Amino acid sequence: MVRYKLTLEYDGTPYCGFQRQDNAPSVQAAVEYAIAQFTQTEVTLHVAGRTDTGVHALGQVCHVDLPKYYDSDRVLKGINFYLDEHPVKVLVAQQVDESFHARFSAATREYLYRILNRVAPPTVDLMRVWHVPKLLNITAMQNVAREQLLGTHDFTTFRATQCQAQSSVRTLDVCDIEQVGDEIHFRLKAKSFLHHQVRNIVGSLSLVGSGTWNEQDFKDAFAAKDRTRGGPTAPACGLYFIAVCYNDDLST
Amino acid sequence: MVRYKLTLEYDGTPYCGFQRQDNAPSVQAAVEYAIAQFTQTEVTLHVAGRTDTGVHALGQVCHVDLPKYYDSDRVLKGINFYLDEHPVKVLVAQQVDESFHARFSAATREYLYRILNRVAPPTVDLMRVWHVPKLLNITAMQNVAREQLLGTHDFTTFRATQCQAQSSVRTLDVCDIEQVGDEIHFRLKAKSFLHHQVRNIVGSLSLVGSGTWNEQDFKDAFAAKDRTRGGPTAPACGLYFIAVCYNDDLST
Repeated sequence: MVRYKLTLEYDGTPYCGFQRQDNAPSVQAAVEYAIAQFTQTEVTLHVAGRTDTGVHALGQVCHVDLPKYYDSDRVLKGINFYLDEHPVKVLVAQQVDESFHARFSAATREYLYRILNRVAPPTVDLMRVWHVPKLLNITAMQNVAREQLLGTHDFTTFRATQCQAQSSVRTLDVCDIEQVGDEIHFRLKAKSFLHHQVRNIVGSLSLVGSGTWNEQDFKDAFAAKDRTRGGPTAPACGLYFIAVCYNDDLST
Repeated sequence: MVRYKLTLEYDGTPYCGFQRQDNAPSVQAAVEYAIAQFTQTEVTLHVAGRTDTGVHALGQVCHVDLPKYYDSDRVLKGINFYLDEHPVKVLVAQQVDESFHARFSAATREYLYRILNRVAPPTVDLMRVWHVPKLLNITAMQNVAREQLLGTHDFTTFRATQCQAQSSVRTLDVCDIEQVGDEIHFRLKAKSFLHHQVRNIVGSLSLVGSGTWNEQDFKDAFAAKDRTRGGPTAPACGLYFIAVCYNDDLST
């Protein structure tokens, strides 16, 4: 068996999420099917971070063991050929050592969240952004990000109630917020994230941005360690899984 | 009658183009219908620059005469409300003097063309870019743009054979080409453009970028004043009408 690291880009809109499910199209099923067509063997993809229904990826990472050696370029083109009309494609294919594991070797994961912050609803970016018509105060959200969110905390307030992780403590390394044209981009980076953590953080920050909450309200909700005290879950369509870094510098 | 300037954004994919046609959905029909619903009167839109089937706009400009005065904010929200699911929205509505004409008052028009220049086909940007898998030499294309395209020329080689304009002479004020991530962005600005001029220029520049043509080949084709000597017409889906400038500074 020869192991390959695959960097994927996908439009999450038509899928039930990354993970294979019965009776619903998934990114995993699409890619496993394409690899099976290419190699004529059944394979199992291992992924750095599962994504939910409607969440996009610009740099998802998987690994897969193929029955024999193929040139990396042939792996990329072969899988993309069989992915055909699926809005999922391999950006990079790279042969890696068997010690590489897409999930367990990951040192950090990075997400982008896009808010379209203008009165008019989206057109070309429909299903690519969360439309928030009320103008948000970016400085107020940046202050909360810097003073309250960065670092190691118990993120229970921003964790989906169905989250399976053993601990609710995570360390947020980056939480940058910037205006890009009429969009606001949130970039969050951590070793790992809780279920819905990015979307719940963005939803709660939007309350600060709109003036519904002040910084103390955010602090109280965060300290309560209670999901029902947090803000809304921002919609899936604004979320992008953009990168995974690996310690051994195998990252793309 | 009260005149309003409307700045529009749209996804051109589902439309036969800007202009109203029998038996095919158009941007004009969608917007005129929404305005008719909002004002309860039939109206005619006047547009700065018609766009072809599948061409997008981030800053198209129209004007329309409404039967009475409405607050600009109400015009914007009223039309967008009736545009509903259409991927066409009013970004800005502004009351203007009756001397303002979206088409005849326009001083310059600006287009963006996006090439996705990587091996993997697009996913989230499907129908938003032209996918060119072979890596293009940007410097070679920039040289041609600067040395041959800028300024006043007979653009017959880059003009659709069905173009209706009386003269094939145009003055290109801007022709910038830059790498943006794995995309190449072409920005062209002129008082006016010939039919398919931007797409034919980009298609021909791509031949220089890929090495199929050298700079002299481009020069010979341009000098021939013959469309059959030009390169291919780049696909509509990569083209965006991004801005119109007006001399009287009524521009958005």
